Amino acid sequence: MRQSKLFTRARREAPADEQAKNAQLLIRAGYVHKEMAGVYDYLPLGLRVVEKIKAIVREEMNAIGGQEIIMSSLQRKEVWERTDRWNDEKVDVWFKSKLVAGGEVGFGWSHEEPITDMMQQFISSYRDLPAYVYQFQTKLRNELRAKSGIMRGREFVMKDMYSYTLDETTHKSFYDSAIAAYMRVFERTGVGDRTFLTFASGGAFTEFSHEFQTLSSAGEDTVYVHRGKKLAINDEVLRDDVLAKLGIRRDELEKVTAVEVGNIFDFGGTKSRQLGLMYKDSTGGEVPVHLGSYGIGITRLMGVIVETMSDDKGLVWPEAVAPFAVHLISLGSSRSRSDEAGKGGEEITKTADALYEELSRAGVEVLYDDRDMSAGAKFAESDLLGIPGRIVVGKEAATTGLFEVVARATGVVEKVPHEELRERYA
Amino acid sequence: MRQSKLFTRARREAPADEQAKNAQLLIRAGYVHKEMAGVYDYLPLGLRVVEKIKAIVREEMNAIGGQEIIMSSLQRKEVWERTDRWNDEKVDVWFKSKLVAGGEVGFGWSHEEPITDMMQQFISSYRDLPAYVYQFQTKLRNELRAKSGIMRGREFVMKDMYSYTLDETTHKSFYDSAIAAYMRVFERTGVGDRTFLTFASGGAFTEFSHEFQTLSSAGEDTVYVHRGKKLAINDEVLRDDVLAKLGIRRDELEKVTAVEVGNIFDFGGTKSRQLGLMYKDSTGGEVPVHLGSYGIGITRLMGVIVETMSDDKGLVWPEAVAPFAVHLISLGSSRSRSDEAGKGGEEITKTADALYEELSRAGVEVLYDDRDMSAGAKFAESDLLGIPGRIVVGKEAATTGLFEVVARATGVVEKVPHEELRERYA
Repeated sequence: MRQSKLFTRARREAPADEQAKNAQLLIRAGYVHKEMAGVYDYLPLGLRVVEKIKAIVREEMNAIGGQEIIMSSLQRKEVWERTDRWNDEKVDVWFKSKLVAGGEVGFGWSHEEPITDMMQQFISSYRDLPAYVYQFQTKLRNELRAKSGIMRGREFVMKDMYSYTLDETTHKSFYDSAIAAYMRVFERTGVGDRTFLTFASGGAFTEFSHEFQTLSSAGEDTVYVHRGKKLAINDEVLRDDVLAKLGIRRDELEKVTAVEVGNIFDFGGTKSRQLGLMYKDSTGGEVPVHLGSYGIGITRLMGVIVETMSDDKGLVWPEAVAPFAVHLISLGSSRSRSDEAGKGGEEITKTADALYEELSRAGVEVLYDDRDMSAGAKFAESDLLGIPGRIVVGKEAATTGLFEVVARATGVVEKVPHEELRERYA
Repeated sequence: MRQSKLFTRARREAPADEQAKNAQLLIRAGYVHKEMAGVYDYLPLGLRVVEKIKAIVREEMNAIGGQEIIMSSLQRKEVWERTDRWNDEKVDVWFKSKLVAGGEVGFGWSHEEPITDMMQQFISSYRDLPAYVYQFQTKLRNELRAKSGIMRGREFVMKDMYSYTLDETTHKSFYDSAIAAYMRVFERTGVGDRTFLTFASGGAFTEFSHEFQTLSSAGEDTVYVHRGKKLAINDEVLRDDVLAKLGIRRDELEKVTAVEVGNIFDFGGTKSRQLGLMYKDSTGGEVPVHLGSYGIGITRLMGVIVETMSDDKGLVWPEAVAPFAVHLISLGSSRSRSDEAGKGGEEITKTADALYEELSRAGVEVLYDDRDMSAGAKFAESDLLGIPGRIVVGKEAATTGLFEVVARATGVVEKVPHEELRERYA
């Protein structure tokens, strides 16, 4: 895309009312716009990142048998009353409203209840199991505070998956495959090294649930990491019996600040029984379906990537989630300008235009800075936007066919001949 | 996808509480699930149709320069007060709720105000114009009645685009390109022949706005169609002066029932002025940005396709929006069964499995009915699901390599040799 057409632009100053580093950078770079505290609009560059993350998560969920759906945001009071979670004293993040037609509705802060209620349509026999269902949903939560930018909002995108299985054994097997799929998601999105499978309380249902915690100074959680075993323990379950069970000594643990980017949970048969999701086993007996739930905060993960990878010049995107693969910067000018003006400037523009067309045709995602601005301003904005590869087209490229290529993450500069550019990015 | 893995299944009976034909068929076929009146969940097959329609609309919006974003659902009272549309007596479809942190929020039933307010960040000079911005948004509307299935809901997906231009002339030029893009969308989704550009009242802003009305007995609107000129007039503007202006005689018009699948609207500078979206022209004067808005009801369009194309056997999808291109039906059986049992059944399964793998590898979207059911039940369900091409693998195919191919829309049956199948669908 030509940057002269992009309606967003970078800002020098962070907005005064924004405390979180992730939102400050994303707003300055024109990726998001703040609607109110904890509520952000995603602009063209930001939406591209969200969609890249979703595509990776979708691939991994499909690979373990997940089927994608989309539930409604409007929810029925009656379903949530069955599990005693409609009450504002039990769940303190509800948004609710009155229907003009009479009655109350809730706005989806979670979807376990409605999905499980719906599955009654499709599950009645052991032959209907297992079923793995997921969605990318905009969740609405009436949070008292929202100071963490896109990492904890009143409105955010979450991937939530639900597993419906016969029993503990089949549940456990899927649960393990979900853990592996989650680790692949975090690796592919660039935070694998700093993300730890974390033991947490299983509540009333099981001994443990599991969180995926990414080390970040911007986190709100404290966890205890065992780097050797690549796992962590949260403070709910930091007890001697748990340490013994995991074969870990207390002095091997490192206390760190982290962000929960995912969590997985085993409900056993409890919620299914409350909601009436029962199946007939092979002897005709009525058994509650075994339920697991599996969440990844999509926009939170985007925030964590920003928090952990950006530097003092701006955003730094891993290739897999970057809005564009290449930031092509022309130092030519459409109008006359001091240094690159006249014939030299025209040649540069022609060379850059041709390279933009060539790479685009080859399927490379290119943001092409074709604007009439100083080289310094373009480079500073390019650093802020954080696109992984920068190709600079100046006098040298136009005359010798040798292009300056800069890696955003490392700052490494190379001179690359024209014919190698396409194969490098295509 | 193997149908044995698909968690949804077809139902013989329509749900008793559903009046609309579109929802009855979509529920019976397992495309959607009714959460409450006017609120539907989209299941795997239904979501695939929604995404196909969105992809077509996205292509056409990008082609005329649209840039995709996603706004929040939560909206600020203060923005809507500036245009006097927060008041429930002015807008009667608001869902509103209280913030735990204090104050009220609205849930997006429309986004003209927040988008236009946001654009102040990016538009301050004539050099920043034009900008064309669109989103696919889940709109929430507190409708008193919701009896039209997915055609008029309390929660639905809409593509809304906004044009920000310098003046009437540049607006008009984009407005015309949007009309052409909309007609391409309706042609590509299969309702082009029955969809008419319709003159409607422009309200306080302009002489006319335009609707796109699709002829359907399930419609809620009455319009007057001129088939020769491929346009229509709605009853707000059915006046002699309008007819004279369009060069149409009253007796050339046909009164018909129709569904509004799109609408486009010229706000002039009024709304921008109310919201403070002004730009500096080349002389330094402050001018309100010219605003146009352009909507297509994505899920409504899906409902209209069902209403106008389905037959007494079930759904009939045009190829461009079908959830799968091919419904591959194996008459083999994994367990022993009367007629196709034993060696014959195994050969059939092997042939069907191989064809499924072959077509999938070639990129063809195949729903493969690999279940152990009677041929009659499979054919009836296949008719209900409405996938455009059906390939039947029975004894003949397994032994001669000649496959029965049935077109869902026409019922035409052909015998197609194996080697032609791939090129037909790939």
